[in-house]
Amino acid sequence: MFYIRCGLFVKLDVFLTKIIISMHSIEQYRTAFISYLESRTKTKEPKNLYEPITYILGLGGKRLRPVLTLMAAEIFDKNYRNALDAALAIEIFHNFSLVHDDIMDAAPLRRGKSTVHEKWDVNTAILSGDAMLITAYQLFENYEVNIFHDLARLFGKTALQVCEGQQYDVDFETREDVTVPEYLKMIEYKTAVLVGAALKMGGIVAGASEAHQNHIYQFGRNLGIAFQLQDDYLDAFGDPKTFGKQVGGDIIANKKTFLYLTARDLASVEQKRAMEHLFSIYPKDATDKVNTVKEIFEQSSAVEKTKEAIQKYTHEAFDVLDKLEISAEKRALLENFGKQLMHREV
Amino acid sequence: MFYIRCGLFVKLDVFLTKIIISMHSIEQYRTAFISYLESRTKTKEPKNLYEPITYILGLGGKRLRPVLTLMAAEIFDKNYRNALDAALAIEIFHNFSLVHDDIMDAAPLRRGKSTVHEKWDVNTAILSGDAMLITAYQLFENYEVNIFHDLARLFGKTALQVCEGQQYDVDFETREDVTVPEYLKMIEYKTAVLVGAALKMGGIVAGASEAHQNHIYQFGRNLGIAFQLQDDYLDAFGDPKTFGKQVGGDIIANKKTFLYLTARDLASVEQKRAMEHLFSIYPKDATDKVNTVKEIFEQSSAVEKTKEAIQKYTHEAFDVLDKLEISAEKRALLENFGKQLMHREV
Repeated sequence: MFYIRCGLFVKLDVFLTKIIISMHSIEQYRTAFISYLESRTKTKEPKNLYEPITYILGLGGKRLRPVLTLMAAEIFDKNYRNALDAALAIEIFHNFSLVHDDIMDAAPLRRGKSTVHEKWDVNTAILSGDAMLITAYQLFENYEVNIFHDLARLFGKTALQVCEGQQYDVDFETREDVTVPEYLKMIEYKTAVLVGAALKMGGIVAGASEAHQNHIYQFGRNLGIAFQLQDDYLDAFGDPKTFGKQVGGDIIANKKTFLYLTARDLASVEQKRAMEHLFSIYPKDATDKVNTVKEIFEQSSAVEKTKEAIQKYTHEAFDVLDKLEISAEKRALLENFGKQLMHREV
Repeated sequence: MFYIRCGLFVKLDVFLTKIIISMHSIEQYRTAFISYLESRTKTKEPKNLYEPITYILGLGGKRLRPVLTLMAAEIFDKNYRNALDAALAIEIFHNFSLVHDDIMDAAPLRRGKSTVHEKWDVNTAILSGDAMLITAYQLFENYEVNIFHDLARLFGKTALQVCEGQQYDVDFETREDVTVPEYLKMIEYKTAVLVGAALKMGGIVAGASEAHQNHIYQFGRNLGIAFQLQDDYLDAFGDPKTFGKQVGGDIIANKKTFLYLTARDLASVEQKRAMEHLFSIYPKDATDKVNTVKEIFEQSSAVEKTKEAIQKYTHEAFDVLDKLEISAEKRALLENFGKQLMHREV
């Protein structure tokens, strides 16, 4: 039992209680998940295949996706422990995508440590990644046949969308005519569908109705899009002390984010020309470039439009919760998760 | 109806008929498979993800594995068309493994054409390969839930073994202490289990008993090992006109094949020393090296032992057929396939 069901305590101070219940619960799901992960990631033979898997899965991270799977199972009245294998599949898949994406991005670091292709080599990262994708599928075999079917089916669809999202992201680097709807589809596929799937898997394991499964999926999908748009916003306008990444990094890398695409659509001819020029160069000291682009983002009202879009997707996520026939307590758990995610406290 | 069921004709000349029936049938399975493959591999969006998949699947090859799936379905009394999706999954998985292996081997050519990472780039080959692995799994969704379960389960186990086999193969390149049993496990995982799985999937689709499924799997697995050992033998002693690859290629590349490992165990101290020296160099003109090593293979009786091992696994494959309660006609189909495979006429 991960959140307090005591009605009296809830009545004392609903707001405070919600926060305490939610934060406590997320932490407990996470602890339970990490302990399960550790128990299941023993390095087998051949070591050169399985050691990189143990390594990347042990690098940490917030474990948001598996926590959502466990939470969703309990929201639909199933002991969260029944969802541990589905949660592990989601986390292994997520890390598989990181291992292969890091090769593609030639990224040296992941969570402050060497990436797999850096610590070993590209061939090892390819093959260990492949084994992770297969291992993730295999975890569904621990469920009875109908649940196995539904989990594997959702997983396949989602995994293919994640690949497509990654391909769109790569394609967009060399395309000048990317539209805002195309960008939204890219972040939906690359990021948001896995958040939706993580929640829906909890629903599947719990035997929730198809309608409920789809509602919780849409909650996650919308929240995932909102989160990614906020990431675009914070990359340019976040507090360097709390954001965790280099502020202005997307601008320095000439990344066509929601801010950039919206500014390009809304800016004056001169602003557009200036911005497009700045997005074709890589100056040694990028301070001026970053500041000028940020000014154009603000003046063209791209910042405003981005904030509106974040609001829109966040509200759409929360509106879906109206359709779920769950207790106020459980609803609060999801809402608080969403709020904390959007305030980056999760 | 892909093979002639006419009893009279069979009685006229059993041996000849068997050959005609079998060859005819294999060709028809292949034609039906290729036509299904073509109907199912339309290039979707994003094109940069799906075009390489259409390309590699269109490069041809003998389509041995999917033919086995279709054949097995009919052997267990099901219309082979029911097995087309399972056959396609097997062929897509096989090609996925080629795309990723070709990156690892830095191979420029596959079936005489550019490999995917050469024609596009390494990143495209990684991501398109990933999408192929997922697409293969998705094909099982076209079966009812219990068959889906059994197919996906067999597929996951087999796919992971193929990854492990590939890792052992990579590991063996830099290991001097590889044993013959380790080598046999490597070729079993890298090659033979997929042949067994291709046949067993036909059995699963046809609703064959578990015992029958396992027998046909063992037939394929043993035949796969025999085939790979024969490949080792032909690489050194095959007819350059018919073998299709450069004869002596394994020796030139210092590859530790069954011949090498057996010779190392059986040769005299001097022969062993000479061979180990030759397997540490890459002379510009390799003629002398190839000839000397081949002499040692013969003198040490490694050639004899290799031929014995090929015989042993071929016989084990055919012996399994005794356990199958199928008509003589169907048995002949499997036997002829095996014989033709071992004579490389398939």
